[in-house]
Amino acid sequence: MMAADNIPRYDIVIIGAGPVGLMLSTCLARWGYRIKHIDNRRTPTATGRADGIQPRSLDLLRNMGLKRAIMDHAPAKVYEVAFWDPSGKGIERTGTWASCPAFIDARYPFTTLLHQGHIERVFLKDMTEHGVNVQRPWTIEGFENDEVDELYPVKVEVKHVETGEREVVRAKYLFSGEGAKSMVRETLGIKVVHKDPIAHVWGVMDGVVNTNFPDIKMKCTIHSDAGSIMVIPREDNMVRLYIQIASSTDPDFNPRQTATEEQVIEKAKAIFKPYTLEFDRVEWFSVYPIGQGISEKYTLDERVFLGGDACHTHSPKAGQGMNTAFLDAANLAWKIHHVESGFASRSILSTYEPERKHVAEELLNFDAKYAKLFSTRLPSAGEVQAASKEANASTGTVENDFVKTFKASCEFTSGYGVKYMANALNWTPAHTSTHPLILHPDNNGTKLRAGYILTPATVRRVVDANVVHLEQEIPLNGSFRVYVFAGVLGKRVGALQDLARGLEAKGSVLSKYAHGTSTSTHEKHNPHSRFFTFASIFRAQRGEIEITDALPPLLARYRDHVYADDVADLRVPGVTIGAAHTKMGIGEDGAVVVVRPDGYVGCVVRLVEGNGTVEALNQYFGGFVTRKLGGEEGRL
Amino acid sequence: MMAADNIPRYDIVIIGAGPVGLMLSTCLARWGYRIKHIDNRRTPTATGRADGIQPRSLDLLRNMGLKRAIMDHAPAKVYEVAFWDPSGKGIERTGTWASCPAFIDARYPFTTLLHQGHIERVFLKDMTEHGVNVQRPWTIEGFENDEVDELYPVKVEVKHVETGEREVVRAKYLFSGEGAKSMVRETLGIKVVHKDPIAHVWGVMDGVVNTNFPDIKMKCTIHSDAGSIMVIPREDNMVRLYIQIASSTDPDFNPRQTATEEQVIEKAKAIFKPYTLEFDRVEWFSVYPIGQGISEKYTLDERVFLGGDACHTHSPKAGQGMNTAFLDAANLAWKIHHVESGFASRSILSTYEPERKHVAEELLNFDAKYAKLFSTRLPSAGEVQAASKEANASTGTVENDFVKTFKASCEFTSGYGVKYMANALNWTPAHTSTHPLILHPDNNGTKLRAGYILTPATVRRVVDANVVHLEQEIPLNGSFRVYVFAGVLGKRVGALQDLARGLEAKGSVLSKYAHGTSTSTHEKHNPHSRFFTFASIFRAQRGEIEITDALPPLLARYRDHVYADDVADLRVPGVTIGAAHTKMGIGEDGAVVVVRPDGYVGCVVRLVEGNGTVEALNQYFGGFVTRKLGGEEGRL
Repeated sequence: MMAADNIPRYDIVIIGAGPVGLMLSTCLARWGYRIKHIDNRRTPTATGRADGIQPRSLDLLRNMGLKRAIMDHAPAKVYEVAFWDPSGKGIERTGTWASCPAFIDARYPFTTLLHQGHIERVFLKDMTEHGVNVQRPWTIEGFENDEVDELYPVKVEVKHVETGEREVVRAKYLFSGEGAKSMVRETLGIKVVHKDPIAHVWGVMDGVVNTNFPDIKMKCTIHSDAGSIMVIPREDNMVRLYIQIASSTDPDFNPRQTATEEQVIEKAKAIFKPYTLEFDRVEWFSVYPIGQGISEKYTLDERVFLGGDACHTHSPKAGQGMNTAFLDAANLAWKIHHVESGFASRSILSTYEPERKHVAEELLNFDAKYAKLFSTRLPSAGEVQAASKEANASTGTVENDFVKTFKASCEFTSGYGVKYMANALNWTPAHTSTHPLILHPDNNGTKLRAGYILTPATVRRVVDANVVHLEQEIPLNGSFRVYVFAGVLGKRVGALQDLARGLEAKGSVLSKYAHGTSTSTHEKHNPHSRFFTFASIFRAQRGEIEITDALPPLLARYRDHVYADDVADLRVPGVTIGAAHTKMGIGEDGAVVVVRPDGYVGCVVRLVEGNGTVEALNQYFGGFVTRKLGGEEGRL
Repeated sequence: MMAADNIPRYDIVIIGAGPVGLMLSTCLARWGYRIKHIDNRRTPTATGRADGIQPRSLDLLRNMGLKRAIMDHAPAKVYEVAFWDPSGKGIERTGTWASCPAFIDARYPFTTLLHQGHIERVFLKDMTEHGVNVQRPWTIEGFENDEVDELYPVKVEVKHVETGEREVVRAKYLFSGEGAKSMVRETLGIKVVHKDPIAHVWGVMDGVVNTNFPDIKMKCTIHSDAGSIMVIPREDNMVRLYIQIASSTDPDFNPRQTATEEQVIEKAKAIFKPYTLEFDRVEWFSVYPIGQGISEKYTLDERVFLGGDACHTHSPKAGQGMNTAFLDAANLAWKIHHVESGFASRSILSTYEPERKHVAEELLNFDAKYAKLFSTRLPSAGEVQAASKEANASTGTVENDFVKTFKASCEFTSGYGVKYMANALNWTPAHTSTHPLILHPDNNGTKLRAGYILTPATVRRVVDANVVHLEQEIPLNGSFRVYVFAGVLGKRVGALQDLARGLEAKGSVLSKYAHGTSTSTHEKHNPHSRFFTFASIFRAQRGEIEITDALPPLLARYRDHVYADDVADLRVPGVTIGAAHTKMGIGEDGAVVVVRPDGYVGCVVRLVEGNGTVEALNQYFGGFVTRKLGGEEGRL
C-alpha cells in the first residue's frame, strides 16, 4: 500500500465519525476497503445530539444486522405525537396523531429514540470487527485532487488536534462527514443556500423529570402563552425538551442570544402549567442557533464527497438529521463499491448528488412547512382527527390541504415517501431506453415504483418453513437483489427456464460478472456473482413447492431464497395465497423485480417466455455496467 | 454470614449448572439470595447436549429479559416437522405438520434450536452481574438436614474434583440439578420409576453436511428400510441427527451396545437414500442409552429438592428436556422466594412436587405415545393433513384418535398445554374455599383457566401509545401480577374505586405486605409492595383514556401498566376494541385476573361494587400468606 513516494495509500479517507461517516465506513469496511477514518473529538458522543431513528432507517439498520444491538439499549419508541395548546388554565391536549399512520405499510411504525453515543458505538464495534478504527482526535488540514497518482488522485493532510503531529496520505476518495462546519466544503468553495431565511435559537435539555404531565412519555408539541416546547421521550426514563429561545421573526432577534440552564428550566415550568415539572437531574444542556441550509453541491469531481450535516441543516423538530445522514452514506457506499470493484462505470457516482440532494430539498421544504403549520396556525383536535381518519381511509375523495400536508409529511418523515428520480438506476417511463417489457404503475403492470423502497412483505421460506420478512432476507452486502416473483406454481415453467437460460448465456450481466469460482454449498447469497442475489417467490402454499422441480438449476441454487407467498396480511384481507404478489400489484404471471443494493426498486420486468425478460434486464444493467452485454458473445 | 461454628451460611446450595440449576440460580440471584453454586465440569457445555427451546420457554426467557441474547446467536427456528417414510426407491415425504399449529395461541409458534453452551452462557453472564459465579469443578460429597441450625438446617459437604479440597457449608436449601445420575436423589433413597420399560440406544451427531435432501433445514422424522433418523436443524448451518442404534424391543438388545462415528455415518447415508449425504465436519458424536424414568419424589423435607433430569429422563425426540428443566426451576424459585421473604407460608413449597411431577408424568406418557405413534404405524400424508386441518378449524365435530393425539401433543410440546392442578395457588371449582365471585370457564365467567398460562394479548400502553405484549409487560420479578380488566371506560368507576379502597384497607393483602417506604416516581412495578404489580386494561381507544380520571389513585400509580384494548387480533376478527378482553372471555364489566409470578393464572374474580372483589382476593391469598387478612384490622 506504500508507493515509491512513501505516502500511505487508502481507498478512502473519511472525516468525521458521526452518523454519516460511521455508516459509510461500516459499509466499506465490510466490503473490504482500506479506510482512514478520523474524528476531531477525543471520544464518541458522550451526551446530547441526535437521537431519532425513523422507520426506514430501522429497516436499514436491520438489513445490516445492527438493529438488535440498538434495541439492546431499550430505546423509547414513539408511536404517536400529541399536540398541546393554550387553554384558559394553561395548556390542554388538542389532538394526537400517529407518527407513522396505518396507511403507510411500514414494518416498524414508530420512531426509535436513543442517545447518539449508543448508536455510534454499535457502528464502531462493527467497524473494529472489520479492521477499521477511528483515529482521534485528528482533524483535516488540507486536501487536493492533484491527480499525481492516477489511482489515488486525492492527497489529504491530517493533523493530531493536541500534539500537532501531521500526516499526508493519498486516497481514491475523500469524504466529509464533518457536520455543518465543513472545512472540505469551505475549501471547495461550495455555497450553502438558505431556503427559509428564518433562523431559530434552540435550548435543548436531556434529563430525568418528575411531572404530572400525562404525555411525558409521548412526543409532544406544546404551545402555551409562555412559549413553545417539543417533548421527546428517551431511554432510561429520560426526556428531551427542545425550547425555542428566539426566532429571527422576533423584532429584537439576536442569533447569539443565549440562556442559562436555570432560565430554560424556568421557562419550561411556565410552559407546562397547570402541570408541575421538576428535574431529578439534567444530563445535557445546550443552546444553539439553527438555520436552514443546503449545500449547492455534494461533490465537484466525484472524488471528494460531502454528506450528512455538511450538506443540509434544519431544525431538529422532525428528527430527520441522523436519518438523512445514514441514507446519504448508504447511497454513496454501494456506488463507490460498484465502481471500485469494476462492476459499474464511474457515471453512477454522478447519481449520488441528485438523489440525495432532492431528498434534502424535500426535507427543507417539509421543515419550513412543518414550522409554519405549527407556529402560525394551530390545527384543532377535530382537524387533526379528521386528517388522520381521511388519510387512513384512502377513500380517494378530494383531500384538503391539511390532509395532504399530513399524509405527505408522515410518509416523508417515516422515510417511506422518499423517492429517487429517474436515472440510469431507477427505470421509469422517463428513462431513455424503454424496453417494452418494463412494468410500472402507469401501465398497470405493478404497484412498485422505481426509486421507492421495496414494499415490505411477509412470506414463508421454503427450505425451513420460517415466516420471514422478504425485504430483509438479502442483507446489505453490495449485491443487486433480483426477486423473481414466479406467479402461480407450475404456470411459468417455460418462462423460468428461459430466464435461467438467458442468465447463463455468455453475454448476460450475470455471466459477465460471475466470479467463476465454485463456492461452498452453504453460500446463500452469492454463489455466482458478488453483485447479484436471486430470490424466487411462488403464489403457492409452502408444502406444494419442491424447489428442484419448480425452478431451473440456476435459480434453485439460491434455495435459501425460495419463498411461498402463503402468509396472510392484514393489508390484503381475504387473500390467503399471494398477499405479497397482490400488495406489489404482481399478477398470476409473476414479474422480475430488480432492487438496488440499498433497497430501492430499480426496475420491474415482465416474466415472459423467450429472451425478452433477460434482454430487458441486460438493457437496464447495460446502462451503467463496465462491460458490453448481449451482442455476439451471448444468445441475445 | 459466618456463625460461631465458622461454617459459611448460604440461602441455597445448587449442585449442577445445566438448565435447571442455572434457571434457579439466575432467579434467586436477581432476588438477592446468597447462593453457592457448583458444577463438576471444568467449563460450560462445549458441544452437544440439549438444544430445543419450546414456545412457552421462549416466553419465559423473554420475561426474564434473556431472549435477545439467545437470538443474538441466530438460532435455527423449527416451524414445521416433515415425515419421511419408505418408498420404492428409498424414502419419500409423506407429510408435514406445524410444530405449533395455528389453533394454539402462541406468541412464538416455533422451536428455537441453539447449542446448550450458548444458552448456558446467557444465564452465567446474568448471574455474574448479580454476584453469583459457578465454582468448577466441584462436586457434592454429602449432605444432611440435621437441623442443628434452625435457620440453616442443611449441612452440605463439597469437594474439588481435581485437588480433593473439601468444604462444609450450611444452607436453608439444597437443590440437585445434577442430571440423571443424582447423588442427592440416591442418598435420599428416592426411587426412579420406569413407566415405559422400553429403552433405546441413540447415536447423536452434530455437524455440517452436504446433501440434496430437500428438508435438511426442517425437523424431520425419517423411517426407511435401513433404520430411523430424526433430523434437527441448528445454528451455523449445522444439523443434528439422532439415529436409533438399538431398542429393548430388539430380540438381542444390549443397553451397552455402541457404534463408531463411521458406523453411524454409514447408517445415516443408507437411511437417506436416494438422497446423498456427506459430512463436511462432525462437531460432536455420542452414543448413549436412554430409558424413561421418573423420580418418585422431588423432595422429602421441603429443604432438599430435585429438578430437571434428576427427576425425569426420556427420549430426546420431542425436545422437552431443557424446557421441563427451566420450568421446574422457575416454579420452585418464586416459591422459595415467597417463603424466605416472609410473604407465603412454607406450605406453598409442597406444591412444587405435584405441579411439576404431573408435568413430567404427562411428558413421559406423551413420550411413550409419540414413540409408539411413529414406530408402530406411520400416518399417511392424508391423515396428517386432515388432522392438521381439523385441529385448525376447531369445528367442534367429533375428532378421531389421531387428531386428538396430534392436538394434545402439539399443545403439550409447545408448553401451552401444561396445566397445574387445583391447589392453594390455582383456584378452580375444586378449591375448598369457593368465593361466589370467582370466575372460571365452568360458570362462563371467563375463558381463562387457573393453572394455565395467561393468554397472550397485544394491547396499547396508554402513557406512550406503544403496542405491547400484555403477558410480557410485568417481568419475572417475583411479584404476583394483578390484571384489572376494567371493561368499558367509564362504566366501572364505582367498582374500581371500591377495589382501590379495599386494597388500601389495613387488612388487605396489599396493605399487609406493603413495604411502607416511598419509592421513586420512576418505580414502575412495585411502588407499594414487592409482591404485587397491578395493571389495568380498558376496552377503549387509547386516546380516550385519561389515566387520572379513569382510575383511582392507587391503580393510577401504576401508570406504566395502564393499557388500551384497541389493537386488532387475527384470532378475534372484526373486533377492533376489546380483542384482549374477548380472547380471555371477559365481558364489558371486566374482571380481576391474578397471575402467579411464573405466569400461570391463579384466580379470576368478578369486578363488583362493594367489598366483594377484594374479599375474594383476600380469601385467595389468605390461603397461603403468613399474615391474617381482613378481620378487625381491615374493612372486610
